[in-house]
Amino acid sequence: MGKKNKAFVEKITAMEDDFAQWYTDVVKQAELVDYGQVRGTMIIKPYGYAIWENIKDELDRMIKATGHSNVAFPLFIPESLLQKEKDHVEGFAPEVAWVTHGGDEELVEKIAVRPTSEVLFCDYYAKNIHSYRDLPKLYNQWGNVVRWEKTTRPFLRSSEFHWQEGHTAHATDADASQETDRMLEVYADLVEKYLAIPVLRGRKTDKEKFAGAKYTLTIEALMHDGKALQSGTSHHFGSGFAEAFNITYLDENGKSQYVHQTSWGLSTRIMGALIMVHGDNRGLVVPPRIAPTQAMIVPIAQHKEGVLDKAYDLRDQLQSILRVDIDASDKMPGWKFNEYEMKGIPVRIEMGPKDIEKEQVVLVRRDTGEKEFVALNELESRLPALLEEIQQNLYDKALAHRNEKTTVATTMDEFKQTLDEKGGFIKAMWCGDVACEEKIKEETTATSRCIPFEAEKVADTCVCCGKEAKEMVYWAKAY
Amino acid sequence: MGKKNKAFVEKITAMEDDFAQWYTDVVKQAELVDYGQVRGTMIIKPYGYAIWENIKDELDRMIKATGHSNVAFPLFIPESLLQKEKDHVEGFAPEVAWVTHGGDEELVEKIAVRPTSEVLFCDYYAKNIHSYRDLPKLYNQWGNVVRWEKTTRPFLRSSEFHWQEGHTAHATDADASQETDRMLEVYADLVEKYLAIPVLRGRKTDKEKFAGAKYTLTIEALMHDGKALQSGTSHHFGSGFAEAFNITYLDENGKSQYVHQTSWGLSTRIMGALIMVHGDNRGLVVPPRIAPTQAMIVPIAQHKEGVLDKAYDLRDQLQSILRVDIDASDKMPGWKFNEYEMKGIPVRIEMGPKDIEKEQVVLVRRDTGEKEFVALNELESRLPALLEEIQQNLYDKALAHRNEKTTVATTMDEFKQTLDEKGGFIKAMWCGDVACEEKIKEETTATSRCIPFEAEKVADTCVCCGKEAKEMVYWAKAY
Repeated sequence: MGKKNKAFVEKITAMEDDFAQWYTDVVKQAELVDYGQVRGTMIIKPYGYAIWENIKDELDRMIKATGHSNVAFPLFIPESLLQKEKDHVEGFAPEVAWVTHGGDEELVEKIAVRPTSEVLFCDYYAKNIHSYRDLPKLYNQWGNVVRWEKTTRPFLRSSEFHWQEGHTAHATDADASQETDRMLEVYADLVEKYLAIPVLRGRKTDKEKFAGAKYTLTIEALMHDGKALQSGTSHHFGSGFAEAFNITYLDENGKSQYVHQTSWGLSTRIMGALIMVHGDNRGLVVPPRIAPTQAMIVPIAQHKEGVLDKAYDLRDQLQSILRVDIDASDKMPGWKFNEYEMKGIPVRIEMGPKDIEKEQVVLVRRDTGEKEFVALNELESRLPALLEEIQQNLYDKALAHRNEKTTVATTMDEFKQTLDEKGGFIKAMWCGDVACEEKIKEETTATSRCIPFEAEKVADTCVCCGKEAKEMVYWAKAY
Repeated sequence: MGKKNKAFVEKITAMEDDFAQWYTDVVKQAELVDYGQVRGTMIIKPYGYAIWENIKDELDRMIKATGHSNVAFPLFIPESLLQKEKDHVEGFAPEVAWVTHGGDEELVEKIAVRPTSEVLFCDYYAKNIHSYRDLPKLYNQWGNVVRWEKTTRPFLRSSEFHWQEGHTAHATDADASQETDRMLEVYADLVEKYLAIPVLRGRKTDKEKFAGAKYTLTIEALMHDGKALQSGTSHHFGSGFAEAFNITYLDENGKSQYVHQTSWGLSTRIMGALIMVHGDNRGLVVPPRIAPTQAMIVPIAQHKEGVLDKAYDLRDQLQSILRVDIDASDKMPGWKFNEYEMKGIPVRIEMGPKDIEKEQVVLVRRDTGEKEFVALNELESRLPALLEEIQQNLYDKALAHRNEKTTVATTMDEFKQTLDEKGGFIKAMWCGDVACEEKIKEETTATSRCIPFEAEKVADTCVCCGKEAKEMVYWAKAY
């Protein structure tokens, strides 16, 4: 048995040795995803999907609580429709999967499998918005989209991915701004409070904004390896799409006006953040609030009389308190310990003959490995508190890691050296010129992640060209 | 105002005049669906989607309660994979939408947009099932599929539709049979208890079974116009797919065995049944258990002091009891009555100055139009009871309609005459020969709907050829 346990653990590469391989190993060993047959597609397995479902349910609740309605728009976009907004089609056309045949017949017009659904919503809004009374339109949909990527990795960049995309239309630019802010805050809330991942909130540079947007807001998270991951975006379109699609309404004075639009999306990519922020060399670590199983009961010496009965009783007793399960299979406890550590289940509850005698159990935290003995009659109060402690600890650790890996650079030498030595976020001033942004990317592979909402001044001049600086930007290598 | 109300109601064709047009009118006026730009695709609007979401949530709960896990398999199937099971590919290839290009590049192998996902699950099971310990595999997914249909209608037959598809693998044929039965019963339960639609449970003839199945079980409902609608199917594959995909496991004796599989699906088609079973000439009628809004408060003379305050108080008071909303817009009450009747909201709560004085409200049932005065302090007990009465009444009415439209035929003349005069289900004996089944279809346009689980004998000989009968079959014209 010792051997078997070892073999199990050995399947995971240490993250210090090869972070990319560690990621792939965790995805596989924690049974999150398998590869589809078509390049870059994912099979999201039961455990991976259960985590995603918990994230989804929470976000869906938040989206509805902010007044949005769910809808389902088609998977297919006629080519001519996709081409209506120039910047948008330029941004997406290179990654579109095209349907050209239905059954044996060649189609008259080829059809895009939606890479995103702006044009479908615009077409609908153009037909269905007439008066200021029709506004705002606050729609959201959960679905799948396809982007024909060259290099793919599970969750992080897949040919097909799952997400929600919100599409809204408003009477004024200010209303659309408010919506763009509101939904970014919803994302930040979800990711910080439920996924226990601290995020930077800010605006993308023009170079990095969404194709067709006036501006893009983003939340950015820092992974364990010091690379950033864009975790959710909220776009203000102004009236750009409205002009291209002729989406107008009559205002209260009977005057025709263009609507002002937004869109915002959060995808299965966030699962990648979850893995790379909290995971360790024993596998995944799932924050309690989104864990499908928050505590796993592992009976010890379960062949002994009464142990299994007591363990099942315990499960029944705890079921109304938290999401609890029991593994009463004939595998050895050590094997079970490894499996549930790999899956990142927040708490393990061990219960053996001695514990039963003493009317106690052993609780083992996944995040710190700490053990504590808890009397059975205190469990119902201790467990929820422990879950909250774990949730908070995960957030605190991630925040400490991000703080430790956030560095000011005032020269390109500092910039490069910091990036080489410790990665992470570089705070550096920027003149606002895209040429400097491109040069930084070329020389360092770091990209601008965001211009934070709370402006900072860490120097007077642009880190790249030395001219007068306009804004402080967070830079990082990114997924 | 009277005029406006009339205009609103006039938009609906009477179902007696033109049932197909009535259906289209209801779909549009109740704001369920709009048409997508690509032929036969649907835009499911907020109200339509909210109803579907309630059905989905209920079914998802049932699927999980029977031990299944949700997963997400890819949208795309390589052509070679689709071709692995002969009957299956023959059944689906003519309706496949083919992706041939990714960006500018032509693909080496063309890719099917999934019309159903059996082959994807089979491919996965072949790689992931090794031992009897890996069985059963009980997977389900919610998603979209595409079938390139020639003639389409919202919900009933759309190029893209939404559904859940369960795919399971078992050690024995008996286990798979049990699963096939169990999931049909889950569907029957959902449709009867939540959608208030009585269904026939039975087996499809070989001609009508799913492409690749050993047999198909079905639930069949009767629409208001006397046509049948297949409302959910559960397929037993035996080991047919397992042999084509080489899905084997080692049994407890170390012997290699093929697995036995099932699949089962229920789709947005059921929304069509909902419309056509309960709807009337005033529009949609939604059963309370799946209604997004179960009761709508319409204040009367709301400009009078205190009316709106009281109406909002009432909503706040009722919110923990049922799904209640209020329309405090400046539209006239008559307009609101029409709108919410069109949307099929089960109960209207009217509250005006006189009612407030008497500490009462008026409840108006959507199903019967009956009014009752209820004291405010009795509302919390009366409303849930009323909703249950409506739910039961809808079911009873639908059942009475089906019974009234179910007729025995022992000769082809009787068969044709009944079908012409009143439509509905024809119970008639069949010899089991596909030639008779085809002849009946050719001569009457009726198809075999199912061979009911509870066998009946209504004659000794086949209604078509006069030879010895094997089974009693329900026949009907169908959607």
